[in-house]
Amino acid sequence: MRSNGRSSNELRPMNLTVNVNKYAEGSVFIEMGDTKVLCTATVDEKVPPFLKGQGKGWVTAEYSMLPRATQSRNQRESARGKLSGRTMEIQRLIGRALRSVVDLRALGERTITLDCDVIQADGGTRTTSITGSFVALAIAVNKIAQQHKLPVFPITDYLASVSVGVVNDEPMLDLNYEEDSSAKVDMNLVMTGGGAFVELQGTGEESPFTREELNQLLELGEKGILQLIEKQKELLGPIALKIASGQPGRGA
Amino acid sequence: MRSNGRSSNELRPMNLTVNVNKYAEGSVFIEMGDTKVLCTATVDEKVPPFLKGQGKGWVTAEYSMLPRATQSRNQRESARGKLSGRTMEIQRLIGRALRSVVDLRALGERTITLDCDVIQADGGTRTTSITGSFVALAIAVNKIAQQHKLPVFPITDYLASVSVGVVNDEPMLDLNYEEDSSAKVDMNLVMTGGGAFVELQGTGEESPFTREELNQLLELGEKGILQLIEKQKELLGPIALKIASGQPGRGA
Amino acid sequence: MRSNGRSSNELRPMNLTVNVNKYAEGSVFIEMGDTKVLCTATVDEKVPPFLKGQGKGWVTAEYSMLPRATQSRNQRESARGKLSGRTMEIQRLIGRALRSVVDLRALGERTITLDCDVIQADGGTRTTSITGSFVALAIAVNKIAQQHKLPVFPITDYLASVSVGVVNDEPMLDLNYEEDSSAKVDMNLVMTGGGAFVELQGTGEESPFTREELNQLLELGEKGILQLIEKQKELLGPIALKIASGQPGRGA
Amino acid sequence: MRSNGRSSNELRPMNLTVNVNKYAEGSVFIEMGDTKVLCTATVDEKVPPFLKGQGKGWVTAEYSMLPRATQSRNQRESARGKLSGRTMEIQRLIGRALRSVVDLRALGERTITLDCDVIQADGGTRTTSITGSFVALAIAVNKIAQQHKLPVFPITDYLASVSVGVVNDEPMLDLNYEEDSSAKVDMNLVMTGGGAFVELQGTGEESPFTREELNQLLELGEKGILQLIEKQKELLGPIALKIASGQPGRGA
Amino acid sequence: MRSNGRSSNELRPMNLTVNVNKYAEGSVFIEMGDTKVLCTATVDEKVPPFLKGQGKGWVTAEYSMLPRATQSRNQRESARGKLSGRTMEIQRLIGRALRSVVDLRALGERTITLDCDVIQADGGTRTTSITGSFVALAIAVNKIAQQHKLPVFPITDYLASVSVGVVNDEPMLDLNYEEDSSAKVDMNLVMTGGGAFVELQGTGEESPFTREELNQLLELGEKGILQLIEKQKELLGPIALKIASGQPGRGA
Amino acid sequence: MRSNGRSSNELRPMNLTVNVNKYAEGSVFIEMGDTKVLCTATVDEKVPPFLKGQGKGWVTAEYSMLPRATQSRNQRESARGKLSGRTMEIQRLIGRALRSVVDLRALGERTITLDCDVIQADGGTRTTSITGSFVALAIAVNKIAQQHKLPVFPITDYLASVSVGVVNDEPMLDLNYEEDSSAKVDMNLVMTGGGAFVELQGTGEESPFTREELNQLLELGEKGILQLIEKQKELLGPIALKIASGQPGRGA
Repeated sequence: MRSNGRSSNELRPMNLTVNVNKYAEGSVFIEMGDTKVLCTATVDEKVPPFLKGQGKGWVTAEYSMLPRATQSRNQRESARGKLSGRTMEIQRLIGRALRSVVDLRALGERTITLDCDVIQADGGTRTTSITGSFVALAIAVNKIAQQHKLPVFPITDYLASVSVGVVNDEPMLDLNYEEDSSAKVDMNLVMTGGGAFVELQGTGEESPFTREELNQLLELGEKGILQLIEKQKELLGPIALKIASGQPGRGA
Repeated sequence: MRSNGRSSNELRPMNLTVNVNKYAEGSVFIEMGDTKVLCTATVDEKVPPFLKGQGKGWVTAEYSMLPRATQSRNQRESARGKLSGRTMEIQRLIGRALRSVVDLRALGERTITLDCDVIQADGGTRTTSITGSFVALAIAVNKIAQQHKLPVFPITDYLASVSVGVVNDEPMLDLNYEEDSSAKVDMNLVMTGGGAFVELQGTGEESPFTREELNQLLELGEKGILQLIEKQKELLGPIALKIASGQPGRGA
Repeated sequence: MRSNGRSSNELRPMNLTVNVNKYAEGSVFIEMGDTKVLCTATVDEKVPPFLKGQGKGWVTAEYSMLPRATQSRNQRESARGKLSGRTMEIQRLIGRALRSVVDLRALGERTITLDCDVIQADGGTRTTSITGSFVALAIAVNKIAQQHKLPVFPITDYLASVSVGVVNDEPMLDLNYEEDSSAKVDMNLVMTGGGAFVELQGTGEESPFTREELNQLLELGEKGILQLIEKQKELLGPIALKIASGQPGRGA
Repeated sequence: MRSNGRSSNELRPMNLTVNVNKYAEGSVFIEMGDTKVLCTATVDEKVPPFLKGQGKGWVTAEYSMLPRATQSRNQRESARGKLSGRTMEIQRLIGRALRSVVDLRALGERTITLDCDVIQADGGTRTTSITGSFVALAIAVNKIAQQHKLPVFPITDYLASVSVGVVNDEPMLDLNYEEDSSAKVDMNLVMTGGGAFVELQGTGEESPFTREELNQLLELGEKGILQLIEKQKELLGPIALKIASGQPGRGA
Repeated sequence: MRSNGRSSNELRPMNLTVNVNKYAEGSVFIEMGDTKVLCTATVDEKVPPFLKGQGKGWVTAEYSMLPRATQSRNQRESARGKLSGRTMEIQRLIGRALRSVVDLRALGERTITLDCDVIQADGGTRTTSITGSFVALAIAVNKIAQQHKLPVFPITDYLASVSVGVVNDEPMLDLNYEEDSSAKVDMNLVMTGGGAFVELQGTGEESPFTREELNQLLELGEKGILQLIEKQKELLGPIALKIASGQPGRGA
Repeated sequence: MRSNGRSSNELRPMNLTVNVNKYAEGSVFIEMGDTKVLCTATVDEKVPPFLKGQGKGWVTAEYSMLPRATQSRNQRESARGKLSGRTMEIQRLIGRALRSVVDLRALGERTITLDCDVIQADGGTRTTSITGSFVALAIAVNKIAQQHKLPVFPITDYLASVSVGVVNDEPMLDLNYEEDSSAKVDMNLVMTGGGAFVELQGTGEESPFTREELNQLLELGEKGILQLIEKQKELLGPIALKIASGQPGRGA
């Protein structure tokens, strides 16, 4: 039995609050159970040097945990003077995942930076960051669309992410910290609204996994992600229509 | 006329929410107008090397701003690989201020670290951090007191902080960002419940100030701080009695 | 048609040369086509702080590219003063993968560090590093086994790795740099001799992929890895028997 | 009784030697008792990026202590790879203080950097640095004035600094290291020739201080600073006239 | 008696393999006994900022040791976040030495970077790096000459380097690691094909040396270097003629 | 003709002032013409980790230039966050040179750190640092000898250093900055009172040099160094006797 009486294929309660920051072009506070992440989207009207003059935009992400987001305090990376490998791996993942559903050419020569700051961590901070920052991104892109009359809405599909894993020999959806710590297999999935994979990262450091276990995990994850995307759609309302149609119309 | 119709000797609305973090020994979310800071207190049962074996504890602070706490995004200090002078100056100030009302010997050989993370900045982030982290500190110290039956309650007085400044030739209390940017004189005060000064930092980079202006600013600041301390007392309830009496009794 | 007339399910020629370094406890020079990696294993009779006194050993890896391993010279990370996110991600992957086939308790309180230095890069440097460093690890572990009469041979299974991807809409095995650059989907697989997955990292930044494509790629990869493991077995000879039997006998 | 028989309102002997460096546009070796600081002013005919094209100049400062300026050797910040918080706080203070008496627009698009290198430290190194570097600044600005026929002399007033504190319950002027170490209250004052405050930094970490104590300290400090400014005037001679009149005439 | 029966004035066996890297404009794998260094030359069609617009080129070098090039593993400088003093000293030496035989004006506005990566170290890694990278440089320069029809061949003379030292009171040529460790005097010589000195670095940390000892060491070194240059000439073949004549003709 | 009418074999005027720092165990302010270096010796009653428990001491050096020691201001290495290669090379040289005349076993398990801070630079800062810091070292060692009744005086010989070079085709002694900048050959010599070489570093980056030129330079340098050592002897007085006799007697 999981904590809070969750069944093995059940997500934790998800809560999304939008526009929580008065300065950012898009912002979302996302809670998946006790994991809480603040996602802000910043639009910058220029691109990094490697993209200059190509008529394309860029989407990138940064990830960080507050020192007491975790059970015992973790030292600030600013104080240590460098980012950990874990942080770099996660922020590269978030950026890559978001770019997969953005038409960078349609975005034009501008950069959107997603900042994912983990206020409290209870497992799944990277997947929660992706799910939340997709919404912050959509809000920010909509703001650009309204100002710039883009010919096409640059977000091509929905995007959400969840973790799955084998805990006590049972495949489970959306692991919290305690479950994650004892999982034999741990996998993060990122999928589009169309049901295709964008990222799939499975690791069996403690115990290799079979093709059959992989299939069970993929099925659990797919169902979970579709539920997350349903919630995103509800929340985004009129913006959701733009994602579906590609028309950067008036609304929202 | 100030924004929101504030008069020159009026504080912004202050809101304190306690126990916002499930892991930290003390936590407070403080809002002073649009300035929002999350303060967590972490208790560590050891002291830094320079205090080892002296029978004394330590209180220290770290301060950081989320990248989009400000109007335009500021680069993470973890990405830049070092803390700015401003950050170091502020976190040294917060730690020094808090230590002035802690009996480090009564605290025993333990360290309390206050993390002040600015979620949104609209002027006065350092003073707001001090006011908020005093409350987080009190909650954490009370937890220690309850577990360790300390002979004395180690917090000796209340502590709060506010900014004052001369804006458009008028002395003003609790400047927001816009006022702060155009202030000729800018001063941060930290005071105890007993009405004494702990820190006083005034700067007239744009225009030196006279003894008379100083006195006006000090009066404004004193009144503001007493109001802040009243709110702290209400919020802390039974812990407030311990600070007053020095008795680390049952309550809270 | 692939370069060198390779078919889509064909590995590049692999060459393994052992004991190429006169100091290291294990060393292998591995060539997969034009990708060339020097892997050395260093045995250290102590463990990192977080493992002290637990009766367990540790296996870790470091990865680096020589500046001119690539078409255009890349700046040294030592000169830049920090490791890139890519390097950290790769060396974390190599270490994690190798640990999955080592019984750390049977290894005893010692650390084995695998250094993977890419002499020339033509795609697949991380997978080649895993395949090569497994062999260097096995040689080093065998040396320990011979000196220390361990009750069990600490390597529990074979381990190899390969990349697969979708290039020009066709699933392909073991991508070289040119293919990798134009791949819509890119996946790295790490598997054991027993045919189970240890790591599976797929990314469809350019284009999300379906469950069916995933299955095709997994099949290609599985077959490739089994061929690599066959070559490892041949090369390791008597050590291979120990891996199979768990008996840290005389031989080799 | 203070060492050397000083009374509580007496400055240490101050000695200023000008033009001690053959390359710098302005240079001063200042001794306040056993505290010795070398101040050099460097003129650079450009401004930092944030001021480009605004027709204004910039004045900034750097501060450092030689390793054996202190009783026990302190590690070089260059060897540690970063500036301490204390150093950054001090050099920000020096720069801010000097800018308060410079008309940056009259200075034109050039930067003056004051380097304050503490050769020997016996308390009050930051205040001594300010007093000394004002003189180095004046000499350098005079050199510019002579070369560029500026319409106005860009230094608008004198500037000096001193520390005051409460030692053994007595307010004292110009603390040496030993006094500073045992002071309950410690305050640094920066004032102009016109008697106005530029910076005022008081801290009562060991014991909060009352309004009355503050007033006593301010009076002590004011008198001390006026004496320092008298000495600066004597030393600067003809340049002093320019500061008084604003006329960047021939002389000096 | 030296290891391998070498006499005191005998070089270790030297082996040079050219074009070992498929990307670099020049590459050499050099072995002096068990010391093995990979040298690559990279041509970049621009110069560093300090040379811009002067019509001159630049030659520079970087040096690094693989972690297990040595008996016990040395930590990567990229992981430590900075270059050691030893590394910087060596790479400055290599660059300086190579520039002494290049006519930078004839080279034109381009930079050649020599990367010397020590694959295995057994004494003399810096001298071996110089001898090897001269050959890589010559190959790369010849490539430029062929493409750009330079009026003059920019390499003006041969260059090689060797170590000498006093071991067990006997002057010896080309020390291996064991000899170097017990040498009282240690000297590195860099000379041109014309028999002149380019660099001469002798150190008698363990025991100062006399003028007579110096002369003996210089004689040993000169003879050794001439032998190395003979081998370079053989290897370079047609390029050697260009160095001799200054004519950047067809050949090679 | 050289500036100041110096002949080619003439030293610049040297001035040594001892005990210029009230805290350091030994201190010297050395002036060679316009080159001015402050040398302090710090005694620490422990050794670095690599020497622990071997009954031997250590002598090491650090070197730095004040930002405005030079014609144009050079950026602080503390601000840049790392030491330059030049600085590291120089401080390694100074330490190595000094150790050559110290009996580390006789010194006992203590470390002496020489800090050489260049107050003003006009060529020859490294050689001047060596000459000056030898005297600071001798004073500090004498202090130890007086306190600890060492059986032997641990300094075994005198030590001084000078530069020589070929300027306008003429060999010259003790180059100032202007001469050094136009020298074809540049050489630094470190020698003992007994006339033996400790370090010899010659470089002909601009133009290789012959054996004959080398001999001329060595002769010039030897004579210069003997003069410097004469001055050291005069200055050290009674300590000089101890260096000569090895008897750590009462005197000084």
